[in-house]
Amino acid sequence: MQITAYAPATVANVACGFDILGFAVEKPGDTVTVNFKKTAGVKITKIIGNKNLPLDAVKNTAGYAVIKLLEYLNEKRGIEMELHKNMPLGSGLGSSAASSVAALLAVNKILGEPLTKEELIPFAMEGERLACGAAHADNVAPALLGGFTLIRSYDPLDVIKIKTPKNLFSAVIHPHVEVSTEDARKILKKQITLKQAITQWGNTAGLIAGLLQEDLGLIARSLQDVVIEPIRSLLIPGFNEVKAAALKAGALGCSISGSGPSIFALANSISKAQYIAKNMENEILKMKIKCDVFVSPINHEGAKIL
Amino acid sequence: MQITAYAPATVANVACGFDILGFAVEKPGDTVTVNFKKTAGVKITKIIGNKNLPLDAVKNTAGYAVIKLLEYLNEKRGIEMELHKNMPLGSGLGSSAASSVAALLAVNKILGEPLTKEELIPFAMEGERLACGAAHADNVAPALLGGFTLIRSYDPLDVIKIKTPKNLFSAVIHPHVEVSTEDARKILKKQITLKQAITQWGNTAGLIAGLLQEDLGLIARSLQDVVIEPIRSLLIPGFNEVKAAALKAGALGCSISGSGPSIFALANSISKAQYIAKNMENEILKMKIKCDVFVSPINHEGAKIL
Repeated sequence: MQITAYAPATVANVACGFDILGFAVEKPGDTVTVNFKKTAGVKITKIIGNKNLPLDAVKNTAGYAVIKLLEYLNEKRGIEMELHKNMPLGSGLGSSAASSVAALLAVNKILGEPLTKEELIPFAMEGERLACGAAHADNVAPALLGGFTLIRSYDPLDVIKIKTPKNLFSAVIHPHVEVSTEDARKILKKQITLKQAITQWGNTAGLIAGLLQEDLGLIARSLQDVVIEPIRSLLIPGFNEVKAAALKAGALGCSISGSGPSIFALANSISKAQYIAKNMENEILKMKIKCDVFVSPINHEGAKIL
Repeated sequence: MQITAYAPATVANVACGFDILGFAVEKPGDTVTVNFKKTAGVKITKIIGNKNLPLDAVKNTAGYAVIKLLEYLNEKRGIEMELHKNMPLGSGLGSSAASSVAALLAVNKILGEPLTKEELIPFAMEGERLACGAAHADNVAPALLGGFTLIRSYDPLDVIKIKTPKNLFSAVIHPHVEVSTEDARKILKKQITLKQAITQWGNTAGLIAGLLQEDLGLIARSLQDVVIEPIRSLLIPGFNEVKAAALKAGALGCSISGSGPSIFALANSISKAQYIAKNMENEILKMKIKCDVFVSPINHEGAKIL
């Protein structure tokens, strides 16, 4: 009884929502196929699409998340799994989250669905802890639930799915430069001015209101980050030019995806998103840097069994 | 052709929404009656309910707001007006905003409604500038529009009405102690930690999502202020006891109204709001301080012509 699950790439932070917001795209995404094995424990039999990821389950984010799930469920049966990676690592697109989430959803299914999607979030967060040292949820929550998700609080964990307009599309480019999540975090200031903070929470509130009142103009006006983007964008060559090109091409907004180097833009149609992506790509190519381009609707259902 | 308008009291900040959020209550509120007069200019003929407010229109917030409106409209006809103050000044309930807004709505009506309610906001803000030195909108916007309003940005001004659940009620107590808006602003720190800011924008986003998804549990969890309340509450005797009593009595949340000294709580029924108010009042009375008590549904329509 083999089960395969798919989990999508995700854009965390979403301009004004540092550490609290994320959304899922339709593609790219990872698939994981799981099966019972005769002995206890978790074994990764194969990883297709990436040669650098560890096969040792304890060291692999997806393997580790599943180990934690089996422990919690006191499950004695063993699981073997095969990972298909379809997106770049370290891109700021939630690659580790997609693998963990797909693995957890498949394993939960093969075990008869003892947990809900929401209940799988903490185990996927354990995968993130292994991947980057912090058990953050802003990629795993949208990868599981789809649409935009809000992490209102970590202590206690409070994840809210935000109803997302149908006519929202995403253009993401991934320039082939390296930005480590750790560096991207270290560079941030520990203090900000009250004035900056007020601007930011005005925009966060505006973005949520824009999504829920289906007001694309308000979404566009709210997609501004006065706290994180001005600092982190220094780590991404050509960021300002790419953003200017996206806005000029009609993007509702444009900012860094997660901790970068990927850059996302939102648009009100798929053709507009394609046009925006093309213009963003051109700016990267001008600098003789290669990049991947992903254009997709927002994913509304999240991870799924195939 | 005499016109009378009513504008309600308002609660600004609303815990996590410092400088960006406010809501209107059904009562108390101020009424203003206007009429044309034979000579140009603005004349305040009478102020009922408060002996300390200036009759000189240029020095009165309502008078000044109307002067600015007439200037803008290039209106040569003169206006005389009578103010009925039904709420305490300096209470943190938007008393000056209620008078300005009622006056503006009445004058706009008598002039044939050249402007929309939204377009009156900047003139009411001029009244606030006269009252406290800052042209803030977090009282005048909900007083005009009703419900919860978000001031996403001041530059440019971007005011959004947030659809508010019907089953939301407010309990407000006004202890008879003085807190000047200026002091309440001076006491705040100019810098906050990024961690505090993230908590705050998580809660702001949660509050907006709770209102729009009609999730009272989420509203309750989001009504937390880790930035302003811990500092400003020091200026309000017994604040911690009043808040504890409100929460114990079943309030969804409780915090400072505007810059204080009034304290508001939200509840899911009018009887619950009454019970909460009684418990809040008891704590104030224990300290031998007098207080006013206001229990009311959220006002959904804002200022109106009577």
